[in-house]
Amino acid sequence: MLEMLRETVGVASTPRPPVALGAVELLPARLAEDAKVSLEAIVSRDGLRDDHSERVGHAAGKGYVDLVRLRAGTPEGAPDAIVLPAGHEQVRAVLEVCARHELAVVPFGGGTSVVGGVEPLSDGHAGVIALDMRRIGEMVELDRESKIATVGAGMRGPELERRLAAEGLTLGHWPQSYEYVTLGGCAASRSAGQASSGYGSIAKMVLGLRMAAPAGDIALDAVPASAAGPGLRELIVGSEGTLGVIDEVSLRVREAPAERVYEGVMFESFAAGIDALRAMAQEHALPDVARLSDAAETRMSMVLAGDGGLKGRLGRAYLGARGYGEGQAERCIAILGFEGNAKEVKARRGRALELARHNGGLALGGSPGRAWLKGRFQAPYLRDELLTHGVMVETLETATRWCNVPGLHDAVAGAIARALEAQGTPGIVMCHVSHLYETGASLYYTFIARQRAGAEIEQWRAVKRAASEAIVSGGGTITHHHAVGRDHAPWLEREIGVEGVAAIRALKAELDPAGIMNPGKLVRIGASSRPENPPRGAGRPEVSDLPG
Amino acid sequence: MLEMLRETVGVASTPRPPVALGAVELLPARLAEDAKVSLEAIVSRDGLRDDHSERVGHAAGKGYVDLVRLRAGTPEGAPDAIVLPAGHEQVRAVLEVCARHELAVVPFGGGTSVVGGVEPLSDGHAGVIALDMRRIGEMVELDRESKIATVGAGMRGPELERRLAAEGLTLGHWPQSYEYVTLGGCAASRSAGQASSGYGSIAKMVLGLRMAAPAGDIALDAVPASAAGPGLRELIVGSEGTLGVIDEVSLRVREAPAERVYEGVMFESFAAGIDALRAMAQEHALPDVARLSDAAETRMSMVLAGDGGLKGRLGRAYLGARGYGEGQAERCIAILGFEGNAKEVKARRGRALELARHNGGLALGGSPGRAWLKGRFQAPYLRDELLTHGVMVETLETATRWCNVPGLHDAVAGAIARALEAQGTPGIVMCHVSHLYETGASLYYTFIARQRAGAEIEQWRAVKRAASEAIVSGGGTITHHHAVGRDHAPWLEREIGVEGVAAIRALKAELDPAGIMNPGKLVRIGASSRPENPPRGAGRPEVSDLPG
Repeated sequence: MLEMLRETVGVASTPRPPVALGAVELLPARLAEDAKVSLEAIVSRDGLRDDHSERVGHAAGKGYVDLVRLRAGTPEGAPDAIVLPAGHEQVRAVLEVCARHELAVVPFGGGTSVVGGVEPLSDGHAGVIALDMRRIGEMVELDRESKIATVGAGMRGPELERRLAAEGLTLGHWPQSYEYVTLGGCAASRSAGQASSGYGSIAKMVLGLRMAAPAGDIALDAVPASAAGPGLRELIVGSEGTLGVIDEVSLRVREAPAERVYEGVMFESFAAGIDALRAMAQEHALPDVARLSDAAETRMSMVLAGDGGLKGRLGRAYLGARGYGEGQAERCIAILGFEGNAKEVKARRGRALELARHNGGLALGGSPGRAWLKGRFQAPYLRDELLTHGVMVETLETATRWCNVPGLHDAVAGAIARALEAQGTPGIVMCHVSHLYETGASLYYTFIARQRAGAEIEQWRAVKRAASEAIVSGGGTITHHHAVGRDHAPWLEREIGVEGVAAIRALKAELDPAGIMNPGKLVRIGASSRPENPPRGAGRPEVSDLPG
Repeated sequence: MLEMLRETVGVASTPRPPVALGAVELLPARLAEDAKVSLEAIVSRDGLRDDHSERVGHAAGKGYVDLVRLRAGTPEGAPDAIVLPAGHEQVRAVLEVCARHELAVVPFGGGTSVVGGVEPLSDGHAGVIALDMRRIGEMVELDRESKIATVGAGMRGPELERRLAAEGLTLGHWPQSYEYVTLGGCAASRSAGQASSGYGSIAKMVLGLRMAAPAGDIALDAVPASAAGPGLRELIVGSEGTLGVIDEVSLRVREAPAERVYEGVMFESFAAGIDALRAMAQEHALPDVARLSDAAETRMSMVLAGDGGLKGRLGRAYLGARGYGEGQAERCIAILGFEGNAKEVKARRGRALELARHNGGLALGGSPGRAWLKGRFQAPYLRDELLTHGVMVETLETATRWCNVPGLHDAVAGAIARALEAQGTPGIVMCHVSHLYETGASLYYTFIARQRAGAEIEQWRAVKRAASEAIVSGGGTITHHHAVGRDHAPWLEREIGVEGVAAIRALKAELDPAGIMNPGKLVRIGASSRPENPPRGAGRPEVSDLPG
């Protein structure tokens, strides 16, 4: 791959490895002694960490800017302490101490936010605490009959799946960050997994939850549905730690599938593939995983995965003979995955493949599906490796109604490409359609370019702005499943309006009157949530629209 | 039926017909002249009505207490005027005038609330306006490709289905009040239709909406899904007119089903039927309509519908021969309805009936299904007729997780029965399970008793309180699809907690700072949303927990 990139976007002449973690520069922790004593009284001495290693580990998420800064050894900031509550009452008590001492609180689950969701920002606070949820990760209740699992919010994805698998169950939530995520983090950031077309996003899975807010708890029992007023569950899902800390979630689980079939289909064009996916979504024949690469991503995946996993039995010759060979520059590969009991999968898959064929799709068999499954969580590791070679890899995503999918695809891809060119670093822009709904789908972009050495963040910011503008002016949502965090906050008002933002601020003022919860995320700063306390410029990065 | 009731619960010795509408007593309208002039300037003279007939027509919803009072000619109150805005800008302008003149605004769609959702209550206001949405009922856009219909919120259910049918589409939302409901009213009250197991509730259908709040609009474009912060759509859905007026909704629609199969299945017991429905819900074999009557409702429906529609070919003899005859007092009938394309229905129905048989279900063929379809919107008319004979009929509903369905069923049925006995009017208490989810289902109760003449409302209130207490202390939601309104407001805090109610109040304070929107609904009064303006006791019913 590096070879290919050397020829296309260009790579650094000499590798740029990350600095050792120990060499990362941090300002001294500035937690006041009385605050520290109060916190240790709650979580014990072992529950409060302020060593260099923990502070670096909680200094940032996994966004592009996070990686660039951490690899250079110069994060924007770091929490003054990491606090590890061991239960709900400890969370409550910690929030009370933090409100009293004007400490900002950043709820920290897996730390995998790619939108600046866990940055230790201050908005004039006396310090910043990372509230690490790793000690609140127990299975609270498994209701097999109702298929509801209630877990501590700090439980990680793989741990939950391991516990469920022992009972023949699954949650079915596999974001790319699956290996690290906590269930509370997924709920707070409204994430969607790779199989969301079948299993739904986390918002569909969360039936109940408990959020500890500074003003008090909101605890909502797991009921299958309710008409008891505005949807408070949906309000807390996606609140990104700005209203309080989700410390328990009740999740819908399912029988583990007896059958899993993953396979590839090649279409003559992106448009033909979209038509096929839309028909599947609207005719009760939706695969659990469905992703259609555009022509650019298809080209890349054919390179990366050895003809998309087709090197063997079904190789170039087969594709060429059927008219879907390399010369067909518009060809687009789709991965379809079906999970369930054998009979149900057979019926659904039969209908889906029929709709694929009806739209000119060529079935490629199981090898592309297996190749995709094998690499499904690998992209972030590859991204890190490429940074060593001076290559920027970034992803962003949106969703829109079906009739707007082709137009928005082109508009955003064009905006990214033009912005990269304007930076003097023309790149590769790729996209896939995934996360299908009856009414529309997500568009997920990956772009690759040579880094502008010494101006990496300026380069990133220019492209991010261009893509975000194209999304909001093109009828897409600013984010389908990455959340808002810090990076998308400047565009939230374009999506939900002045009054929508005002509504969120009003909620925050009620639930977090001291304004300590995850400052600088979700809603744009400027009209600060703590206007009566102007930033005191105490040598700590203040909140801003985009990382600088 | 009357004969049967005469022998069981008892009926009035002489019929008690309702008074003529013209004889209904109303206090004089007291809209200030300057307010009237301002409102007429917006909606024209024809758009403001204060004649007796319109005032009576907007004096109440369709709850039991509403009917009792209206039939007696003594409603609790009536709006001072009915205002008919013809578009979004008129709605905005009307809200502004009402805020200035301290007029309460009751958004009025179909007027079919059974929980006091449209009562013209005042909380110290200078008057009450019913904002009738009937003139905002146009199709704004029909996006066939994305399957999204955008309509004015005042469009009625049958009108939308008629427009969609012409395009081969359907919404699939059929609450019992279908003939009258507006789509905005459905969204505001978070309703669920009879086919919600397949089509989902209105909350699943609303992709976008516009709400005119006194403070400003919240307009959310129709996107299939988003992770852009807290779910504001879900917050407005279910807001019951207390935050603003929903005046446009974008709804997911579907291809009209080519095949519709409705049929009956008899189970040996309620427990066996529940097991079968749960299996269908958890194994991707859910009918679009699924309702399982308990033994009491089964007995009643066999009387009412001529053996549940089985009088002919499959009659008593058949049931008796198979061991499901009248002597089997625990038998329970289920109605299952499947809609879709022929192939898909065949597969899903095949699996569902297999699961029914596996749980001892006896297939009864299509006649019970046809009987149910024929009478599906009739119950409210029957209720009205029975009131003439001094018989109370009331319904209420909840939802809970599967493992709690049998226990909650018994607890609530028992509470209703005991409360009726305590009133000296022992009754018939019936229930069905419907609105199925993977994790649970709704329980829908109907109870019938002799009215306590002269103390009808006191009698109702005692039973309502007993049932609601049993629901909230038994792990159910206070309402699955009737909404909160005035009647359930006293129990909302038990469900969402002090902070949940505070969050809703904070939203209201932001969006409706003058506190004019639908006072006395959703959140309990007591801690009034306008504490600085104590009720002025101006000869108008003030808000209260339950109708008195």
